[in-house]
Amino acid sequence: MTSLPASVTLVEVGPRDGLQNEPQTVPLTVKVDLIGRLAEAGLRRIEAGAFVSPKWVPQMADTADVLAGLPARPDVSYPVLVPNEKGLERAMAAGAREIAVFAAASESFSQRNINCTIAESLARFAPVCRTAQDSGLRVRGYVSCVLGCPYEGAVAPDAVAEVAERLAGLGCAELSLGDTIGTGTPGKAVAMVEAVAARIPRERLAVHFHDTYGQALANIYACLQHGIAVIDCAVAGLGGCPYAKGASGNVASEDVLYMLDGLGIETGVHLDRLLEASRFVTDALGRTPVSKTARAFSANHRERKTLQR
Amino acid sequence: MTSLPASVTLVEVGPRDGLQNEPQTVPLTVKVDLIGRLAEAGLRRIEAGAFVSPKWVPQMADTADVLAGLPARPDVSYPVLVPNEKGLERAMAAGAREIAVFAAASESFSQRNINCTIAESLARFAPVCRTAQDSGLRVRGYVSCVLGCPYEGAVAPDAVAEVAERLAGLGCAELSLGDTIGTGTPGKAVAMVEAVAARIPRERLAVHFHDTYGQALANIYACLQHGIAVIDCAVAGLGGCPYAKGASGNVASEDVLYMLDGLGIETGVHLDRLLEASRFVTDALGRTPVSKTARAFSANHRERKTLQR
Repeated sequence: MTSLPASVTLVEVGPRDGLQNEPQTVPLTVKVDLIGRLAEAGLRRIEAGAFVSPKWVPQMADTADVLAGLPARPDVSYPVLVPNEKGLERAMAAGAREIAVFAAASESFSQRNINCTIAESLARFAPVCRTAQDSGLRVRGYVSCVLGCPYEGAVAPDAVAEVAERLAGLGCAELSLGDTIGTGTPGKAVAMVEAVAARIPRERLAVHFHDTYGQALANIYACLQHGIAVIDCAVAGLGGCPYAKGASGNVASEDVLYMLDGLGIETGVHLDRLLEASRFVTDALGRTPVSKTARAFSANHRERKTLQR
Repeated sequence: MTSLPASVTLVEVGPRDGLQNEPQTVPLTVKVDLIGRLAEAGLRRIEAGAFVSPKWVPQMADTADVLAGLPARPDVSYPVLVPNEKGLERAMAAGAREIAVFAAASESFSQRNINCTIAESLARFAPVCRTAQDSGLRVRGYVSCVLGCPYEGAVAPDAVAEVAERLAGLGCAELSLGDTIGTGTPGKAVAMVEAVAARIPRERLAVHFHDTYGQALANIYACLQHGIAVIDCAVAGLGGCPYAKGASGNVASEDVLYMLDGLGIETGVHLDRLLEASRFVTDALGRTPVSKTARAFSANHRERKTLQR
């Protein structure tokens, strides 16, 4: 396959996957304001938080208040991460209409990240997915480590497909395939996607790339060529600081959108407004965006201002 | 076309295109040391400098000394940029065996960058190419602004093909197609490459991407799918600082190599040694590499050291 999709859905994960991995915690008002700006930019699916233990993930402790503070927009979905039935209860009490569960394609990562085997995690999600579906909530399933594990190294495409299929069987409407450590390259990304697509229609697949080794856009382009039309991204590349340990982080929404705009692929998202949201959150964090597109526009903006003087 | 080349030649432009665009000038010894390290890493074509006016480009004033200081390696080519016959004389006196000339695909850029029309620049290169060829020197032709011009905006693929064809006609063995301002995206890059390949065999084409908007690797991947097997890159992404005005700069060699390694494409270059050369030059410049691959390996390295304590 090499024809590109005519339109792509961007799933903005900055306010959750991004902010959760930032060293500092952002105030509630900033989160609400950021999500509102992202919706104004045209994003229609914005991950708003997580109902996980505030002891382990203090950055997400105020997710119920975030949801309460968001403007009622029937056209925008604000999915939240839930790890178990208790999390689902809290999410439903807070009015969430879409949830996400997360499993790993690597046994070691599952053990170290969520303290149980892959099978145990799936068993734990079964009642979560059932209750969510019974209550009319949409469920998204994350599969992490789809192109590499920090403990095991390479991960077999079939292992990814197996976990994705199990999650789909539990009722996940969409599977987001995450290159958690960013070691994927286009050929391997395509092989992995094709292994999953052999079991689940590719219309239900999303890709989630971290840009640790700078490979994310190339991987996304390769996946677009293979019929993937849902892409996770984080405004300003939140979740990774270029000068901090790890240097990982989600692929920046601005860079993804710049490419999609250039390819003539519809997203409904406006780059200028997305850049404003990016500036807003990086100002709040007191740092430069990881996004090269954001930095380039910012430099051009400064240059124009200088020329106008 | 979607099959990838089995092997790719990396043309390392960091010591010239990179250092020329760094705010500070690097001492001669550092340049010689850097180029030696790049050769040790397996690079076989390393742009070593430019015989241009030292008044306009002071960073390249010592190119003759650089060439004199390099180890004699018959397996490595050290091309140098020459703008005119005087430059060629100096290059030949310094023992250069490969030169490069540069024209623009955009009339306004030609005027502002090299102070003459495209036609005038080609006329100026005619005797340069003739003399060089008569003397057994290989000639490379750069075409700049192939995917956009800072003054004119979009550049037509046919305008690029026209200039490339004229340079080929003058005797350029290879044409390097440069996205000078980094605004290209994969679809446009492919359309441009195909327009040029309609006139010049693609075996003679190289691509030269700047990563201003983070698009370089995606563009390179798309061009690989269209039979391009010569890629320009700069160690550490030299020529662009993430926090300086413009934020442009060549695509980082490390990031390109990481992708090619992942794709199973042969280059003859060793990532670990390239990373050493990258560390060497960024230490000399006192800054962090632009390369995400370099930063990720550096972070992992620090982490390993911490764990070992």
